Amino acid sequence: MDKIIYLDNAATTKPDVKKLELATKYYEENYFNPSSLYRGGRKVSCDISLFKSALLGKNRFKKVILTSCGTESDNTAIFGFCKRGNVVSTMGEHSAIYNSLMKIKEKGIEIRLAKLTKGGAVDQEDLYSKIDKDTCFVSVVHVNNETGAINPINLIADRVKEINPSCIFHSDGVQAYGKIECVLSENVDLYSVSAHKIGGLKGTGALICKEKLNVPPYIIGGGQEGGVRSGTENVLGLKLFADVYTERLEKINSNYEKMRRLKEIVTSGINKDLFTVISPDNGSSYIVSASAVGLRGAVLQNMLDDEGIIVGTGSACSSKKPFSRIISSFTKNQNLLNGVIRISFSPDTNEEDVKYAVERLNFNALKLSGKINK
Amino acid sequence: MDKIIYLDNAATTKPDVKKLELATKYYEENYFNPSSLYRGGRKVSCDISLFKSALLGKNRFKKVILTSCGTESDNTAIFGFCKRGNVVSTMGEHSAIYNSLMKIKEKGIEIRLAKLTKGGAVDQEDLYSKIDKDTCFVSVVHVNNETGAINPINLIADRVKEINPSCIFHSDGVQAYGKIECVLSENVDLYSVSAHKIGGLKGTGALICKEKLNVPPYIIGGGQEGGVRSGTENVLGLKLFADVYTERLEKINSNYEKMRRLKEIVTSGINKDLFTVISPDNGSSYIVSASAVGLRGAVLQNMLDDEGIIVGTGSACSSKKPFSRIISSFTKNQNLLNGVIRISFSPDTNEEDVKYAVERLNFNALKLSGKINK
Repeated sequence: MDKIIYLDNAATTKPDVKKLELATKYYEENYFNPSSLYRGGRKVSCDISLFKSALLGKNRFKKVILTSCGTESDNTAIFGFCKRGNVVSTMGEHSAIYNSLMKIKEKGIEIRLAKLTKGGAVDQEDLYSKIDKDTCFVSVVHVNNETGAINPINLIADRVKEINPSCIFHSDGVQAYGKIECVLSENVDLYSVSAHKIGGLKGTGALICKEKLNVPPYIIGGGQEGGVRSGTENVLGLKLFADVYTERLEKINSNYEKMRRLKEIVTSGINKDLFTVISPDNGSSYIVSASAVGLRGAVLQNMLDDEGIIVGTGSACSSKKPFSRIISSFTKNQNLLNGVIRISFSPDTNEEDVKYAVERLNFNALKLSGKINK
Repeated sequence: MDKIIYLDNAATTKPDVKKLELATKYYEENYFNPSSLYRGGRKVSCDISLFKSALLGKNRFKKVILTSCGTESDNTAIFGFCKRGNVVSTMGEHSAIYNSLMKIKEKGIEIRLAKLTKGGAVDQEDLYSKIDKDTCFVSVVHVNNETGAINPINLIADRVKEINPSCIFHSDGVQAYGKIECVLSENVDLYSVSAHKIGGLKGTGALICKEKLNVPPYIIGGGQEGGVRSGTENVLGLKLFADVYTERLEKINSNYEKMRRLKEIVTSGINKDLFTVISPDNGSSYIVSASAVGLRGAVLQNMLDDEGIIVGTGSACSSKKPFSRIISSFTKNQNLLNGVIRISFSPDTNEEDVKYAVERLNFNALKLSGKINK
């Protein structure tokens, strides 16, 4: 395969090849069913507990429910707890939250979505004003998957519980977990995470929960995961998830610093006559969203793809839709919406590649705009 | 690790090491998000279609929905279609069906369970007598996971649709898929399968559906799998599933013949003074269930485990419960229920190992019964 420069790490990441080999070797010897009572099964069951502990990092008084993806984690939270009154969330949520809330709405539960500020963070005052005594559930994404805007979820969770101590606070942490240092406040009841965004496998996710919270099961059957998530545990995926997260956590601040430099290369290097940066300055360093205003982001993405440079245009999960539900919630400029591209990094991304990608991005945007012919 | 003789393949199987290596290599190059619109993403999306085609084998007019496990497949079927009237199933279902039906019952839907004949197959006349015009869903396990009893699901589905053409017919095929030759009748609307029972990975399953059937989504989000199953597709798990199934299908009859010989070694070799065979003669060759009547199956399992021989005691998924819901539905003999062990094979199992295991099984049962002291 020719060399590619992969800059769509918010959509998914290349698996950590060495750790995947180790996890595979582990699994080939430890394939026993963890519900089995013989020695091999009991060992796997113990290992599962250790892997889940690793996923907690520095969090205390929390537990981990293994799921098959961030989406299932979000579904488990929403369908388990949104039972009455109203639910408050934001216009910046991933489809796994947004579409699940629309489903809950069909059952007669009122959904209140707080608006976003420019750049995609939640307007906190708007959020708090929507919460009342009938609010049963509040969900606020930690890092917006399209713009990288960060919501300070610990602060938000604390304030939410002051307004209504009985509601459940959930956050979709898929784009934050292993990337942004964060020990969850005790007021964060539920936190969704995913392995394939940090070098793990697709098909592995988790719901981090407050230790004493009774989470209603969403997948029902043999009673695995303490009855909360049935189905034989995805041991290989979990082992790799624990291993990649452990390394990410060790290097979380140095990685973040490195990403800050990469983000800076993009934001300072792109041609300001052609591009408008959408991501806020104080957003996650892992994601830069920008718009080639008046051009089509998808065409630009294609031109770069032909040169072996891979960028996104928004959330991969909804990239077959015309334009971004999230970005259009804070801007109505159609020319800007059409031109959105998303560049997202991983700790494997190197500076030279990003510099080269920015150069080609500028060149192709110029070409597409008709300002150069070659 | 010392040599072990693994005879609990109905609980889970050792992954196919060579195919897992190949799938891992594939995935390391094809890690792109299949929802992405650049070339790499589109290729993975096409490959997913090919892998799913492979899972259909000789089935026509069916489609595949990728899930995270057999349990999720069963849940998708039950929670998607059991909406009104009554549901008819059997007393021989896996917990993924049984416990989901108990959940549906809480919502006011009547659950009617047909009894089993000795050995664990459904009493077909009892099943048909329970179906009426208000029956919306019928679910009959293909191969019983505890006894190996085979239900002729094509014949049953045809008869069910004669009685009520509007109901949905589902079968849990987890213990049959890749093991027993079966091209599904057009009357089988839904069929649940799982990868880790045939050398694939835990965390990968599928729901095989009639092509024109609209399956309501159970996991809701970005709209993957044609909107039916959201969450980024587990590409590695799916690729391996397709590969192991393809080989299983090619060798399905020769494997079955080989298993028949292994089953014969067990049924003819166990000490008839100590053991009663529970599995029916015409059951799946992959599973032999027997009881050391008057002894405790779990103790026998432990003694064998100490010698490196691994057998099951029933469904791994519910092995923490005192005794089998399924077997106790057709016998009330507590001594028999206490003594249950399950021996289950894979194409990797060899005759010498099974002969040795039977010898040790007899020896340890004799020892446990106090008939020998050594």
